[in-house]
Amino acid sequence: MIKVVAKFVIKSDRIEEMKSVCSDLIDETRKENGNISYELYQDVNNPEIFSFIEEWESQEALDQHMETDHFKKAEVHFGNFAAKDPEVNIYSLVK
Amino acid sequence: MIKVVAKFVIKSDRIEEMKSVCSDLIDETRKENGNISYELYQDVNNPEIFSFIEEWESQEALDQHMETDHFKKAEVHFGNFAAKDPEVNIYSLVK
Repeated sequence: MIKVVAKFVIKSDRIEEMKSVCSDLIDETRKENGNISYELYQDVNNPEIFSFIEEWESQEALDQHMETDHFKKAEVHFGNFAAKDPEVNIYSLVK
Repeated sequence: MIKVVAKFVIKSDRIEEMKSVCSDLIDETRKENGNISYELYQDVNNPEIFSFIEEWESQEALDQHMETDHFKKAEVHFGNFAAKDPEVNIYSLVK
């Protein structure tokens, strides 16, 4: 199992669009083979900060996700919404 | 429910100490009222990057956690182990 945290800082005037695009992405991603969980969070202290927290059965499943049409479509939107480069970390559980 | 992601970059020669200190912290924290989950992850591409991914019933439960002896003790160690300031975000679920 791998865990992904993908953190975005979104321009303040694009926050509602961000949520809308993510909603569709989440619905499609949860149908994928190898996805265990895929959730979007918003910072309680700064509404411009969002993180996807994701669980995948394997790196291969994550790689396949990034080749899907729904991911590639959302990625273009994220590039327009983001105030800076996203911060993506792939993790394994220590404890 | 709130979710916390607390990300640390640890000096390469302190990684094993970091894991040891975190192990005790995790055991104690999981016994706390209001803690739903408390897990430590290490970046698969950069072993100096660690994140706690935490779930708490409320902000109050998280506030109480930060007043415990086990948290304060670990915090001193983290200050010594860290290569830079930690990045802590408190999140609510969007979807």
